[in-house]
Amino acid sequence: MNILEKIKTNEDLRALPAKDVPALCSEIRSILVDGVSRTGGHLAANLGAVELTVAIHRVYDPFRDRILFDVGHQAYVHKILTGRMDRFDKLRCLDGLAGFPKPEESEADPFAAGHASDAVSLAMGMARARTLTGGDYDVVAVVGDGAMTGGMCFEGLSDAGGSDEPLVVILNDNGMSINESVGGVSSMLRRARMKPGYIRFKQAYRKAMKRLPWLYLATHRIKEKIKNHLLPPNVFDDLGFYYIGPVDGHDEARLEKALLWARELREPVLLHVVTVKGKGYAPAEELPQLYHGVDVFDPSVGVVPKAADDFSACFGRTAVRLAERDGRVCAVTAAMESGTGLETFAARFPDRFFELGIVEEHASAMCAGMAKQGMKPIFAVYSTFLQRSYDMLLENVGLMGLHVVFAVDRAGLVGKDGATHHGTFDVAFLSSVPGMTIYAPASYAELDSMLEIALEEETGPTALRYPRGGEGAYREDHSREAATRLREGGDITIVCHGILTNAALAAADILSHEGVAADVVKINRILPLPEELLLASLRKTGRLLAVEDVCREGSVGSHALALAAENGVALSGVRRLDLGDGVVSHGDVAALQHRLGLDAEGICRAARELLHEKA
Amino acid sequence: MNILEKIKTNEDLRALPAKDVPALCSEIRSILVDGVSRTGGHLAANLGAVELTVAIHRVYDPFRDRILFDVGHQAYVHKILTGRMDRFDKLRCLDGLAGFPKPEESEADPFAAGHASDAVSLAMGMARARTLTGGDYDVVAVVGDGAMTGGMCFEGLSDAGGSDEPLVVILNDNGMSINESVGGVSSMLRRARMKPGYIRFKQAYRKAMKRLPWLYLATHRIKEKIKNHLLPPNVFDDLGFYYIGPVDGHDEARLEKALLWARELREPVLLHVVTVKGKGYAPAEELPQLYHGVDVFDPSVGVVPKAADDFSACFGRTAVRLAERDGRVCAVTAAMESGTGLETFAARFPDRFFELGIVEEHASAMCAGMAKQGMKPIFAVYSTFLQRSYDMLLENVGLMGLHVVFAVDRAGLVGKDGATHHGTFDVAFLSSVPGMTIYAPASYAELDSMLEIALEEETGPTALRYPRGGEGAYREDHSREAATRLREGGDITIVCHGILTNAALAAADILSHEGVAADVVKINRILPLPEELLLASLRKTGRLLAVEDVCREGSVGSHALALAAENGVALSGVRRLDLGDGVVSHGDVAALQHRLGLDAEGICRAARELLHEKA
Repeated sequence: MNILEKIKTNEDLRALPAKDVPALCSEIRSILVDGVSRTGGHLAANLGAVELTVAIHRVYDPFRDRILFDVGHQAYVHKILTGRMDRFDKLRCLDGLAGFPKPEESEADPFAAGHASDAVSLAMGMARARTLTGGDYDVVAVVGDGAMTGGMCFEGLSDAGGSDEPLVVILNDNGMSINESVGGVSSMLRRARMKPGYIRFKQAYRKAMKRLPWLYLATHRIKEKIKNHLLPPNVFDDLGFYYIGPVDGHDEARLEKALLWARELREPVLLHVVTVKGKGYAPAEELPQLYHGVDVFDPSVGVVPKAADDFSACFGRTAVRLAERDGRVCAVTAAMESGTGLETFAARFPDRFFELGIVEEHASAMCAGMAKQGMKPIFAVYSTFLQRSYDMLLENVGLMGLHVVFAVDRAGLVGKDGATHHGTFDVAFLSSVPGMTIYAPASYAELDSMLEIALEEETGPTALRYPRGGEGAYREDHSREAATRLREGGDITIVCHGILTNAALAAADILSHEGVAADVVKINRILPLPEELLLASLRKTGRLLAVEDVCREGSVGSHALALAAENGVALSGVRRLDLGDGVVSHGDVAALQHRLGLDAEGICRAARELLHEKA
Repeated sequence: MNILEKIKTNEDLRALPAKDVPALCSEIRSILVDGVSRTGGHLAANLGAVELTVAIHRVYDPFRDRILFDVGHQAYVHKILTGRMDRFDKLRCLDGLAGFPKPEESEADPFAAGHASDAVSLAMGMARARTLTGGDYDVVAVVGDGAMTGGMCFEGLSDAGGSDEPLVVILNDNGMSINESVGGVSSMLRRARMKPGYIRFKQAYRKAMKRLPWLYLATHRIKEKIKNHLLPPNVFDDLGFYYIGPVDGHDEARLEKALLWARELREPVLLHVVTVKGKGYAPAEELPQLYHGVDVFDPSVGVVPKAADDFSACFGRTAVRLAERDGRVCAVTAAMESGTGLETFAARFPDRFFELGIVEEHASAMCAGMAKQGMKPIFAVYSTFLQRSYDMLLENVGLMGLHVVFAVDRAGLVGKDGATHHGTFDVAFLSSVPGMTIYAPASYAELDSMLEIALEEETGPTALRYPRGGEGAYREDHSREAATRLREGGDITIVCHGILTNAALAAADILSHEGVAADVVKINRILPLPEELLLASLRKTGRLLAVEDVCREGSVGSHALALAAENGVALSGVRRLDLGDGVVSHGDVAALQHRLGLDAEGICRAARELLHEKA
C-alpha cells in the first residue's frame, strides 16, 4: 500500500505520475479482494471498475463535480478514493460504511443508489440545474450494460440526447449484468462493441474542424457519409449523443484521454467502455457471477458455493414441483435467476422460464399477457424491485383480475445491502392493488403449501412475501388458515406474520415465565385480512402489540386498529413494532432487528410497557 | 351508411371488395365526427387510424387473434368494427360504451387500456402463451410514436426483438403524441420516416430468397451490405425486429399488403405506419392538438376553445406567479402541458419548463436531480400516471428527502375516461413515501396558497392533489390549518377533503334542517394527518362518516379509524364513503358520485343510517 496511503485528496491523485497509476490500481484491487473477503460484498463489479474509477477521479473532482454510479454496487473504489478507506473494514456492517453510495457518508455521493437505470435521469436533472444556476461543475453518470435494459434508462437517454446539456454518460459494458444481459439491447450493444478504431478518426476529425469552423460546416455532410461508412450510427448516435468508443476499460491512460475529450465536448456524450467483470482476481474473472455478491471467503481459496437452504431455494424447489404437474406454470425473473432460486427451474423447464433483464415493468405486464391467455406465470422478484411494477400491478394485473403469482423474495429486512434494498413497502403498495391476495409464509412448509394454493386455488392476483435467509424455530404449516392462534392468553394480543413469528413466539415464552399470558395471532394471509380471529383476540385482551417487518403505512397493525375501531372494540393499549417510515439502514439482520426492537427482547419490553400503562 | 350497415361480422368486412374500402373509411369518419361531436371523446387519433384499423380487421380476426391498442384512445374504429356501433351514441356515458378498450364489453378487447407503453409487453406475454399452448392465433400491438418514448415500451421491444416469437408491432407514427414528441426518440423516428422506398426492395429480395434458400445463405452478407447502403439499420433492426416501413397509413390497400407480409414472416416484425392525426376532418388535421380529446361540439363549426376556469388553469396561474418571484421554480410535465395548465408557464419561462414526453419515471427522477442541485421543480402530472413513478418517489425523492413538488392533477374521479384514468390510488401510494406531505386544496384559493406553501415553506417531498374540473360553492382558504371544522355539531363527525367538501357541506346543511348537527371536519393536509381536531371531534360525536374520492386503502377514513383505536376513542358508528377498491367505471362525474353515494343525498343517507343504528 505504498502509493494509496500517500493519496489523501483528489489533488494527490491527480498529481500522481501516470507511470504509477497501474501500481495504484493493483493496490486498490488488493484492498478490494482483501476487504470484501472479510466483510462480504459486491466484488466482481468493483474489480472491473478500478481503472475506470481512477480515471474518473483523475479527470473530475468528486466533490465539485457530480458523479453518479447507477445501481451503485460498483462504487467501492469511489469510496476508497474519497476519504473512506479507513472505514472499509466495516463495509456493510451496522453503523459502518454502506455498500452503496450514501449522501450521509460523503459529499462525493450525490444520491443514494441501489435500484438500476435511474442515474441518467438524476444526472439530467443535475445538469439542468447546473446550467440554470450557472454552476461550474460537470455531471457524469456511470451505467452498466445491465441497467441499460431498464426502460427508465432509455427514457433518460432519450431526454439527454435530445437536450444540449453537457453531460457524460459512461456505459460500463462488461457484457453481462447480474446475469448475462438478455434481449435485443444486449445484441445491440454487442454490435457496437465490435466496431473498429472509429474513435481515432472521430477525434482527429473533430480537432481539425475545431480549428477550421467554416470547413466544419462545409464538410459536415461529407463527414456524415464517411462516418456512416466507417460505423453505421448506433442507437446512441440516433438518440442524439456524441458517441465515443468502445474504449478498453482497463487502459487507464486511454480512459483519461477519452474522458478529457468527452468533457471538452460540452454536449451529451456517451462514452462506451468495455470492462471485464472480476478483472485482476483470477477466480472472479473466471466466474464473475459467483463473485457478484459474496459472503466472507478465503481469498487464497476463493468462494466455495454453499448449498445453504433458504426461502429462495425452497421457492425454487416448489416451483419445479408444481411446474412438473402443470404445464401452464411458468417462471419469470428480472435479472435475478440465481437470487430467486430459479436455477433448477431454468434448467428443467427452459421453455417455461423467462429471464428478461432488469425490466420489472415489462415483466409484470408480460405475466399479465401470459395469464390472460391461459398460462400460470410466477414473477419471482425482490420486494424492493417490485416497487417499479406498481402501475402494472394496478392497471395490467389488478384491474384485469388476472391470475399472476408474485413470489416476493427479500421481503422485510435484507441486512447489509441497506436502505435501498430492504423490502419494507410491499405490503403497503400491494394492499392497494384491486383483488390482490397476500400470503406471508413463515416456514418452508408454509411457502411450499402457499405457493401451491396460490397457483392451484387462487384465481386472481396473488403475492407471497418471504424474507432473505432461512426459516427459524417455527416450522409448522398453517397455510390452510388465514390466521392462527399459536399461543393462547388473555393479557395481550401479539399479532405477527412471516419470519418475525419466531421472535413473537420467543417473546411469548419469556412473557409467560413472567406470568403474562399472550395471545399470539399469526397472520398467514395478510390480505384479505382475517378479521374474525383478530377481533376475537382484541376483544379478549384489549391490548394490541403488532410485530412486523413492514413500514407502518398499510401494515397489519394499522389495519387491525381500523378493524377494532370499526367494530367498536375498545383498546386500552397499542404498540406497533414495525419499520416506521420504511427507511432502515444497512447491517446484519439480527443487529437491525435488535436495534429496532423487533427481537424477543424488544417485543417483551414493549409488552411490559403496554401492560404497565393501564394495569 | 350504405356500406357499414351491411357489415355485421368480420367475414363481411373481409368480403368487401377492395374498391369499396375507401368509401367504407369515409363512412366511418363521418360516424366518428358525428358521434364524438355529440358525446365528446378522442377524435383526432381515431380519424388518423381509420385505414389502419380497417386493414387490421381485414387481415386479422379480432375475436380469434389478439389486437392490442396501446393507450387505447384510438380504438373507436375497432369498436365500430366489432359489433359495438349501435352503442356508439352512448360513448363514455354512464353504462355506455367505454372510450378505451374494455374486456367486459367485447372479446375483441383483450386488455383494458389507458396507460401508455404497455402493449408490447402484454403482446409478448400473449404471444408466448400462444406458442406454449400451441394456440393458433396472431398477436398484434398498435403503438403510437408518443408511447414509444416510454421506457416500458423499450423494455417490451427489447424482449420481443430478442425472442423468436411471431408477433407484429405496428408503430402508428403521426409525428406527435399528445403533445409533439420530444427528446431523442422523436428525432430517431424522424430519421427512419424519411428513408426512401426501401420496403419494396426488402420484400422483393425476401420473396426471391424464399424460393432459393441456398442463395439466401450465400448472399446474406451481400444483402446486409446493400441493405445498410440503402438504409442504415435503425433501432428496431438493432433490437432484432424485422423492420417494414414506412408505409402510408392512409393507403388501406398497401397497409393490407404490408400486414399480410408481416404476418407471414413468423418472427417479431415492426411495421412502421405513418398517419396524419385528424385525417379527413379538416379542422382536426389543422389543429390535431385541439381535437385530441374534445367535448361536445358542432361539426360544422368545429371545436371552439373555451377559456373555462378549472383547477388546472388555477395551478398554471399560480405556478407562473411563483416562478416570477423565484428563478429556481421549474415546471416539468410528461406529455401533459396543456392538460395540466402549463401553457402560459411554458411560454413565459421556456428555460424552466420541461415537457419530457410520456416518461413519468424519468420525470420524477429528473426532478430529484434538479432539487438536489438547488432548483425547485414542480412535476405536474395526472394522479393515475404518477403511479408509474412509485419507485422513484420512494428511492429518488423520498429516501433522499428532496424538495420536489408533485402537482397531482385529475385526482379522484375524472369522469368519462373511466377506470384506467380515475385518480383513486394517489393517497394510498403517496402515503407510503418517506417524508411525504399531501395537501388537498378544495378551492382555487387553497390551491394557490398551498402551492405557495409547498414551494416556499415545505422542504421535503410535497404533493397537492386536486380534481379535474372547477371548484364548487366552497371558496374559502384554510391552507394555513391542517384541518378545519367547517360546521360545528355533536351528532356525527363528517370528515372530508378536496372537492367533496362541497357535498359534505351540502349534506350537513340538509341534515341540520332535520335536526342533526354534524361536525364537518375538512382535512386540508392529508399527510401528516392532523390528529388533534379529528380526535376531538370523534370523542365528541362518537360517529365517523368519511367522504372521500380515494380508494379505501390508505384513505383518511381508514387512518382516522386507526387513530381513534390507538387513542382509546370508542366509536358507536362508522361509515367510510369512498371508492372502495379503487376501480370505478366511466361516466359523468356527477352521475358517478350519485351512484357511489358521494353526493349530498348519499352522504345524508349514510348519516341517517349511522344515527339510526345506535340511536
